[in-house]
Amino acid sequence: MTYCLGILTQWGLVMAADSRTNAGVDYISTYRKLFNFSVPGERVILVCTSGNLAITQAVVTQLRQDIHQQHSENLHTLDSLYEITTYIGKKIRQLQEENRPWLEKDHIDFQCNLLLGGQIQENEPELFLVYPQGNCIHATPETPFLQIGETKYGKPILDRTLTYHTSLEASAKCALLSIDSTMKSNISVGPPIHLVRYERDSFQLNHWLELRLGDPYLLQMRRSWEQSLKQAFAQMPDPQWQGGSSEVLGRN
Amino acid sequence: MTYCLGILTQWGLVMAADSRTNAGVDYISTYRKLFNFSVPGERVILVCTSGNLAITQAVVTQLRQDIHQQHSENLHTLDSLYEITTYIGKKIRQLQEENRPWLEKDHIDFQCNLLLGGQIQENEPELFLVYPQGNCIHATPETPFLQIGETKYGKPILDRTLTYHTSLEASAKCALLSIDSTMKSNISVGPPIHLVRYERDSFQLNHWLELRLGDPYLLQMRRSWEQSLKQAFAQMPDPQWQGGSSEVLGRN
Repeated sequence: MTYCLGILTQWGLVMAADSRTNAGVDYISTYRKLFNFSVPGERVILVCTSGNLAITQAVVTQLRQDIHQQHSENLHTLDSLYEITTYIGKKIRQLQEENRPWLEKDHIDFQCNLLLGGQIQENEPELFLVYPQGNCIHATPETPFLQIGETKYGKPILDRTLTYHTSLEASAKCALLSIDSTMKSNISVGPPIHLVRYERDSFQLNHWLELRLGDPYLLQMRRSWEQSLKQAFAQMPDPQWQGGSSEVLGRN
Repeated sequence: MTYCLGILTQWGLVMAADSRTNAGVDYISTYRKLFNFSVPGERVILVCTSGNLAITQAVVTQLRQDIHQQHSENLHTLDSLYEITTYIGKKIRQLQEENRPWLEKDHIDFQCNLLLGGQIQENEPELFLVYPQGNCIHATPETPFLQIGETKYGKPILDRTLTYHTSLEASAKCALLSIDSTMKSNISVGPPIHLVRYERDSFQLNHWLELRLGDPYLLQMRRSWEQSLKQAFAQMPDPQWQGGSSEVLGRN
């Protein structure tokens, strides 16, 4: 499995990903899922991938090739992130068309999802989710985060704490906790965690992080968080219990 | 959808359920999913249900009928909770057998899951999950909670904070927050919430709760929780960012 998320706030962008892949629980591997295609000073382009590994690796390889071979359309020439989603969408559709009949025969999941975040000179920072069908949605001030892969375990913490006005540092912590919660509940999501924090209009990545298994910060963060949760319970008002005959419980 | 959970600790049992059902997002209704079949002083029997409403209502109706008609096998005569799971399992299998071919024809989900928790005189408190196939598992000190329905959003808080030694009051708060997190992330889970706290060897239910939409305690709990989470972020150590050329990000 995989868990990646992107957060777009008024201050910039945070993107994060785990690195575990699995083909059944008996075949676990480590693959990077957060890729940087930035040109410092000119554009920041970050891509996260989830889904069928052969498909996502093929997409990323083609994105790289197009840059190296100086195709007219590539991540370094297109003028906006929206155009880039269309370009990536075309790649996905083409790969799906080639592979789908073969994978379908053996009931292999051929889906893939991508997050695309960044900023190109003369544009605002943006965050997109590109679907397996090649179309996309983008984050908005009302819904400032997008997730792909194993999204449910890590969503409550985002829902409770994130807004478009959250600071980048708090957003980054929130992203880490969201991934850590997912790792704790689903062993097919695992370290290293990659995390990037991008400040809008800076056009370069000065804050990134790789947290490996047993990283002291990860352990410290988890301990601090679990302690805080226990304190939160203690602070929470006690329920106003009702007792005696429990009509409300539908006593039979 | 539905979300129900049971928690078994050394001090007793907590069970909780939401009350929303839906047939598509355009048909939302309210149905109780936590049922009390206790005989005060002799046995505490609590049942939570999820899945196809026609099937779960049929199961609960038959459980009631067998008591009222004084069948030799019913929730008030069987000697242990394990025997009760076998009895409930038989009901489920029989209903599945009758209905499955008809529901399958129209691609209707006929699955149902049940939680069974309680204590019968001369036995320990126990908590079981009965599967749609009629077999079951039970909670243990290592894994003191069981969930049915929309389980993922509410699991991280249980994973982080619950152990077999957690007090019943903290377990009850944890259950409420687990349901509240689920309601916040999935609109097909909704109030009223039913919550029961059972103290072992008391053989009666003195603590139950029904929280309706907009209940002041629910709002107060949510506010307190969100405030605590924000404090927890502030207390969390800042990430040790790395900067400069980001080899680790696989710059292309």
